[in-house]
Amino acid sequence: MKYCFGVDLGGTTVKLGLFEESGKLVDKWEIITNTRNEGEAILPDIAKTITEKIAEVKIQETEVIGVGMGVPAPVTAEGTVNGSANLGWKYKEVRKELKELLGFDVMVGNDANVAALGEMWKGGGAGEKNMIMVTLGTGVGGGIISDGHIVIGNNGAGGEIGHICVNYDETQVCGCGNRGCLEQYASATGIVRLAKKKLTAETRATELVQENITAKDVFDCVKKGDIVAIEIAQEFGHYLGYALANICTLMDPAVIVIGGGVSKAGEVLLEFIEKAFHERVFFANKSVKFSLAKLGNDAGIYGAAKLILRD
Amino acid sequence: MKYCFGVDLGGTTVKLGLFEESGKLVDKWEIITNTRNEGEAILPDIAKTITEKIAEVKIQETEVIGVGMGVPAPVTAEGTVNGSANLGWKYKEVRKELKELLGFDVMVGNDANVAALGEMWKGGGAGEKNMIMVTLGTGVGGGIISDGHIVIGNNGAGGEIGHICVNYDETQVCGCGNRGCLEQYASATGIVRLAKKKLTAETRATELVQENITAKDVFDCVKKGDIVAIEIAQEFGHYLGYALANICTLMDPAVIVIGGGVSKAGEVLLEFIEKAFHERVFFANKSVKFSLAKLGNDAGIYGAAKLILRD
Repeated sequence: MKYCFGVDLGGTTVKLGLFEESGKLVDKWEIITNTRNEGEAILPDIAKTITEKIAEVKIQETEVIGVGMGVPAPVTAEGTVNGSANLGWKYKEVRKELKELLGFDVMVGNDANVAALGEMWKGGGAGEKNMIMVTLGTGVGGGIISDGHIVIGNNGAGGEIGHICVNYDETQVCGCGNRGCLEQYASATGIVRLAKKKLTAETRATELVQENITAKDVFDCVKKGDIVAIEIAQEFGHYLGYALANICTLMDPAVIVIGGGVSKAGEVLLEFIEKAFHERVFFANKSVKFSLAKLGNDAGIYGAAKLILRD
Repeated sequence: MKYCFGVDLGGTTVKLGLFEESGKLVDKWEIITNTRNEGEAILPDIAKTITEKIAEVKIQETEVIGVGMGVPAPVTAEGTVNGSANLGWKYKEVRKELKELLGFDVMVGNDANVAALGEMWKGGGAGEKNMIMVTLGTGVGGGIISDGHIVIGNNGAGGEIGHICVNYDETQVCGCGNRGCLEQYASATGIVRLAKKKLTAETRATELVQENITAKDVFDCVKKGDIVAIEIAQEFGHYLGYALANICTLMDPAVIVIGGGVSKAGEVLLEFIEKAFHERVFFANKSVKFSLAKLGNDAGIYGAAKLILRD
């Protein structure tokens, strides 16, 4: 039997998974991310917990294919990071260092991209090789998979779907410094922004109230048929659906997977996105499927495992 | 010595090149494309001319690595075409058929994508592995290269840069059936459209005249300092530069190569594109370089050769 490890390195915790070669998750655990002193202990801590796990479950080192890892930063094709605010890292040859610590083969990728790979392997995009993943959380993240491979890019900054411009007339500034980024309309905070703006000028009856409104409130009200909430969801759907139509013109994916906290709204979310998408999609991309993410917080460890298992 | 063939299959002529493994072009010739009877003679004609060339230049069949070919249609990763209007083909397993005719390894790709691969190998993107190519001709074509590989997509329709929507308020319909496609503003015909629209409402002195105006006229006048022509070029630059900024957010390329007839305007063209690009580019993509295409009509045969040579 052959095994591999999938590591999802976050700013607070490190999630780890022990997988069989087939993709079966055998064991799953977490350790704390120690970001002190520019995160110098992070890789040694990961190497230590993996070594301990190998001893604990009594597998032979020769049975270990290697370790894949997702990191919250742009990661080049060579596995190098040029600084990560969440981890305290400056320039770091992550792949090389972890390989030296462990003695196994190591592959490293950006966490959002690696999660996309996980969803392609065992989640909402299973069975496909060309996929767009959009993660609707506090921000909008994403990952693009072309012919089974992550679009990494020259600086490891590929797949930054949240920062394509969808509204050149926007006056508010995005966290990235630009104006009109998809993230400003399609993230949980973006949906709240759309809702507050709408409610300010709204005279019709609605269950939505401006104060402490959340993206979940909006979709809960949509499910009850609240017309104001439905119009907010339509606006969200237009921004995201039109953006995805453009992305398809470039990438021609088989499937688009929607994940992140906002996607917990369920199938109703896809309806709004798909309706707008089909108003604008290029004829060659009409057959693209939409799917909700299926792996939740485990997408990162699955994708990391797939990264080291390769094709 | 090892050799390969690069084939650029067009609706009128088939361009062929014999290459050394290093990429040195040894011989170059053309045959007529016979589109009669649903283009049934096209592949046999190509096989025949390659077999004759091998005999003529006296190379051994064992010295031939294989044949790469670009085709004017979407081509799947398996080398299958689902119809090509220019060639008369319906569904055709192009790779398989040509392989059977020749006995060599064959790789097939979409012609615009293959030309992009050629520019990455020996042209404007030489030395890079992540590249966007935009071809500004009658339409706007393109190709996307990620980590050295063409973005093919699920239907072979990846890289259709000309049909991303850049103006949701457009009323005129694009050839694809949508409205607001990049092609409507950045192709030779698109630039003429922008110019005519501008000249209709223009009162300032300009050398440009609406009748029989061409994209070349516009850039010729730009070079003379004609303010009206400059404003047309600025509008062109905005549409294309903003679109490229968005594409970079997804692909993080090292270089953007601009080719096609319009690119004969030279470096001045890049100035307008780059200025607009830098108004909108995502911070991670600021270092992207711009370059003019260098291989002209030979990009297709170079890219086809690279397709079969692989990495």
